[in-house]
Amino acid sequence: MPPFKTRFRVSWVDTDAAGIVHFSNYFKYFEKAEEELYRTLKFNFESVAEKYGVILPRVEAWCRYKSPLRFNDLVEIEVSVRELKEKAVKYWFKVCNKRNGQLAAEGYIVAVAADKNLGKAVKIPEEIAEKLRAYMET
Amino acid sequence: MPPFKTRFRVSWVDTDAAGIVHFSNYFKYFEKAEEELYRTLKFNFESVAEKYGVILPRVEAWCRYKSPLRFNDLVEIEVSVRELKEKAVKYWFKVCNKRNGQLAAEGYIVAVAADKNLGKAVKIPEEIAEKLRAYMET
Amino acid sequence: MPPFKTRFRVSWVDTDAAGIVHFSNYFKYFEKAEEELYRTLKFNFESVAEKYGVILPRVEAWCRYKSPLRFNDLVEIEVSVRELKEKAVKYWFKVCNKRNGQLAAEGYIVAVAADKNLGKAVKIPEEIAEKLRAYMET
Amino acid sequence: MPPFKTRFRVSWVDTDAAGIVHFSNYFKYFEKAEEELYRTLKFNFESVAEKYGVILPRVEAWCRYKSPLRFNDLVEIEVSVRELKEKAVKYWFKVCNKRNGQLAAEGYIVAVAADKNLGKAVKIPEEIAEKLRAYMET
Repeated sequence: MPPFKTRFRVSWVDTDAAGIVHFSNYFKYFEKAEEELYRTLKFNFESVAEKYGVILPRVEAWCRYKSPLRFNDLVEIEVSVRELKEKAVKYWFKVCNKRNGQLAAEGYIVAVAADKNLGKAVKIPEEIAEKLRAYMET
Repeated sequence: MPPFKTRFRVSWVDTDAAGIVHFSNYFKYFEKAEEELYRTLKFNFESVAEKYGVILPRVEAWCRYKSPLRFNDLVEIEVSVRELKEKAVKYWFKVCNKRNGQLAAEGYIVAVAADKNLGKAVKIPEEIAEKLRAYMET
Repeated sequence: MPPFKTRFRVSWVDTDAAGIVHFSNYFKYFEKAEEELYRTLKFNFESVAEKYGVILPRVEAWCRYKSPLRFNDLVEIEVSVRELKEKAVKYWFKVCNKRNGQLAAEGYIVAVAADKNLGKAVKIPEEIAEKLRAYMET
Repeated sequence: MPPFKTRFRVSWVDTDAAGIVHFSNYFKYFEKAEEELYRTLKFNFESVAEKYGVILPRVEAWCRYKSPLRFNDLVEIEVSVRELKEKAVKYWFKVCNKRNGQLAAEGYIVAVAADKNLGKAVKIPEEIAEKLRAYMET
């Protein structure tokens, strides 16, 4: 399956005094794209916690910045699953600036499945893993 | 007693593409000053919730912007208690730019005391009210 | 004309440790709704600055919080123009939680037109005023 | 020289509905620590831009999360220079939770020196490089 894609406009509040999107905001963009993917797959952080007692804390995040995003730019984020282990998933994100066709940034988030109450790592619920598998990079 | 004062520097992330602090960040500054006041008074949002079962949700917030703050400006916020009712408190904030001596903004937050579990308005715990009274405007 | 409406989902990053959207984020929501309105009207902060040499700094902002928003709630913001003066505009925002049909918050932003280089208040460009007039409350 | 250290308290606004500091905020913390380091070294983003015509855009950022930070935790960030190349610098950050003595996170930011007007990579001004060299890891 092709990567999941979601689009939005850069808001004024996301920019900094250099006139570009602050580097920390790309991580918010990554997570918003992840939320949209989950929405498409009919689950979310809270439904997973309720149904399986599992939370998905982030253990690692990385971003490489290639070209700046500016206010009002139309952004398209591609999300794919780069690694899917028993207890962890690594999402890969490509941030494309549709104004100029350039890659703005790429990066990843690694989340682990953890018991909601005990905090220790557990298996990703099979129903969730199954859905994510469809977005594995090939 | 004179108003409570706290100082900090404007961070780069707080600015926007106009080169000034984004208007929404003043509300973060207000709350951080409130947190510092509480710290001085030896309590905080969580200790109040634990000890009295009371939370302090915000019901109203307002700010008037007078002169812009820029990156690295030294900011001093004055906090005083403008109104102290049985179940609500209105904090008044003055944001002063120590770089140029100008008033950057002023505004208020109204918080109500609410039962942590039921959510309904309750009396501000007397021990807290007593401490806040010392910062009433005269 | 009916008020302008825009919808989005509450992101995880907008919540705080009380499990609800942090009060400062409503001001970001207001501005994002304003940006969407401008987009519909075919202008934006930067095009106004370029075409007319006019910026729209915020001079006042206010919000009353009625019922909390939580992660993943579907939010609808209504924007209308409450006051349109020669040099200033007051936008009114209603934040509706489509999950429960409740009013989450309402508030306003007052922006003034200012000369991009000199900073002093100027007339709102007539072309912009004309477009905004269509969203005046009746 | 030992790493540069700076301390602050976790603000309420930095937390999310899991009751912990949102992962994106660690990057803001990194940059604030970097700003404090620069302040100690008597320069900042804007003075570098003015004096040398050089900006320091971020080209890469990474964080590994070890244990959560919560509201009001006292945080100490250590900053050191891991790599100092002709045109780029990699800062290393350790985020320590002084409440429990645990390492909360560690990570890096890579910044390049770039011509303020042309955007292309240039040498880090020698005066700045000299100051940063004192914080090289040994």
